[in-house]
Amino acid sequence: MVEAILWRQTHLDLIDQRVLPFEESFVTCRNAQETADAIRDMVVRGAPAIGVTAAYGLVLALRQSPTLESFDQACRDLAASRPTAVNLFDAIDLMRRELSPWGQHDDPAAHAEAVARKYHQEDTAMNHAIGRHGAGFLSGSRRVLTHCNTGSLATSGWGTALGIVRQLHLEKRLIEVLADETRPYLQGARLTVWECEQDQIPVRLVTDGMGGYLMTHAMVDCVIVGADRIAANGDAANKIGTFMLAMAAKHHGIPFVVAAPTTTIDLNTPDGSKIPIEQRPTREVTHVRDQLITSADTAVYNPAFDVTPAELISAIVTEQGVHQYPYQFAKA
Amino acid sequence: MVEAILWRQTHLDLIDQRVLPFEESFVTCRNAQETADAIRDMVVRGAPAIGVTAAYGLVLALRQSPTLESFDQACRDLAASRPTAVNLFDAIDLMRRELSPWGQHDDPAAHAEAVARKYHQEDTAMNHAIGRHGAGFLSGSRRVLTHCNTGSLATSGWGTALGIVRQLHLEKRLIEVLADETRPYLQGARLTVWECEQDQIPVRLVTDGMGGYLMTHAMVDCVIVGADRIAANGDAANKIGTFMLAMAAKHHGIPFVVAAPTTTIDLNTPDGSKIPIEQRPTREVTHVRDQLITSADTAVYNPAFDVTPAELISAIVTEQGVHQYPYQFAKA
Repeated sequence: MVEAILWRQTHLDLIDQRVLPFEESFVTCRNAQETADAIRDMVVRGAPAIGVTAAYGLVLALRQSPTLESFDQACRDLAASRPTAVNLFDAIDLMRRELSPWGQHDDPAAHAEAVARKYHQEDTAMNHAIGRHGAGFLSGSRRVLTHCNTGSLATSGWGTALGIVRQLHLEKRLIEVLADETRPYLQGARLTVWECEQDQIPVRLVTDGMGGYLMTHAMVDCVIVGADRIAANGDAANKIGTFMLAMAAKHHGIPFVVAAPTTTIDLNTPDGSKIPIEQRPTREVTHVRDQLITSADTAVYNPAFDVTPAELISAIVTEQGVHQYPYQFAKA
Repeated sequence: MVEAILWRQTHLDLIDQRVLPFEESFVTCRNAQETADAIRDMVVRGAPAIGVTAAYGLVLALRQSPTLESFDQACRDLAASRPTAVNLFDAIDLMRRELSPWGQHDDPAAHAEAVARKYHQEDTAMNHAIGRHGAGFLSGSRRVLTHCNTGSLATSGWGTALGIVRQLHLEKRLIEVLADETRPYLQGARLTVWECEQDQIPVRLVTDGMGGYLMTHAMVDCVIVGADRIAANGDAANKIGTFMLAMAAKHHGIPFVVAAPTTTIDLNTPDGSKIPIEQRPTREVTHVRDQLITSADTAVYNPAFDVTPAELISAIVTEQGVHQYPYQFAKA
């Protein structure tokens, strides 16, 4: 299994997810600003992976300058990198709490590193728990439709939605994964397919408009996706196109499962309408990799996420277990 | 307005829709086999345009060899070019009927040419009628989501779904078109956007997964699509991804309109489950234009069409008027 985030004490190596599967190269981050840039530029993506990366970014900031002022600046830089993933803010808040009150640690960088490593390990452990709970929710053998990438690249390892897929595969109950290519950024075509192939998980690639057809023809019998932020009422923001799959699953009466660690649940956001949705650059739609696919001056609309209403979600699977509608999450 | 099909008496010039909008070039067909190849290779696409092209292909066959044997061979070649669009078979049947019994015309090619030209003109007239009926069905000003290409390129001129858009635009009731890029073949990104831009129709490009988001945010208030074949019960086959939009429109309570000439209605097909769905090559999904978007050996599933059940269709608009569920079409 590929690891997306490699902590090297003096720096952080991130596998460059922008160029996978065509190149396997790494981007090195030596301070918080380079880490924030890597998150913004999508070298690393996936809500849990962004959280872990941000935590290490703060360790790098403290290594460079162990002052409260530079730590605060690093927190601001990292928080500004991407607006939707709540794990990012969760990781920053955790580091802030651990270093507060300022001055209690002789070596704040050393303490921050211990916290970040533990956060990283716990995220991986949560993934495995999500996989077990989710596979338990789905009886029998399964043909799974998934969207975007929620595997070891999107997390600190194993995966959320893909963690459930991996668990089904371990239990020999996975017939096949159908992976949405996930335009515009092609996380499915580039990353999910590649991850499955690396681990001999049977996978076929489809375009984002094929879900309805696949359900009608019983080529998939469940949908499993991740989430970038889940509101207190269970509304879930995830990669654009997810909501279309949820409506199709409802129409066909097949389970629609959201897999995410509890850190993705934001009790301060009452419902999906309050989740900020990032707008991404025009070029992601007008181009595929370096190739123009439309007239040169075409106007574009490019929201990165949509919100699936709670009533369309059959189950939200966290490391704590399987939640079902109406959703009531305990305060952490 | 661009014309896709240019009849030149001795040959047929087709604008090469595979390379639009990057190049404006033409493919010349001098016989039925070249015409069938052009249909199969998607030089020309769109159900009504395929029908008109096939009719001219039979004229070319008769010009080359005015025998029943070669005419029959040309009918077979053309019928084998693409399986889903009923207009193709409709055009071939029309030409067969017009030349039957064989031998009644001194110059069968001349008679065939007159029939094909009339078929072409009638298709354009039908488009305008569809546009007027469809615009009448939609009150007030509209933000239209469309899928694939149903404009002058897909027809003999004007368009079916895009004919309604053009009529709304003429009546100053069109706020904007949101055009799905329509993976894998990108008819929306390449053709619909370009056609709208040519005629100063306001248009923005979106990816196929964005429809649900656009509806939730009131950025579109109706969906208008074409059809490749409509079964007797109103189930409609159209470009893959259409069914997803229909489910989303139903969920949001906005009109989902199918626009097509009555030649698209196949009373011999009782329902959508009996419509043959063409499977297209792997390369259309693994590549965008010449660019690989996934691992080199990725397995793919690539159905070209899906079927929207009649109960999800608010109206089927033909040149005869507006039909509504439950659908009952008169025999021609």
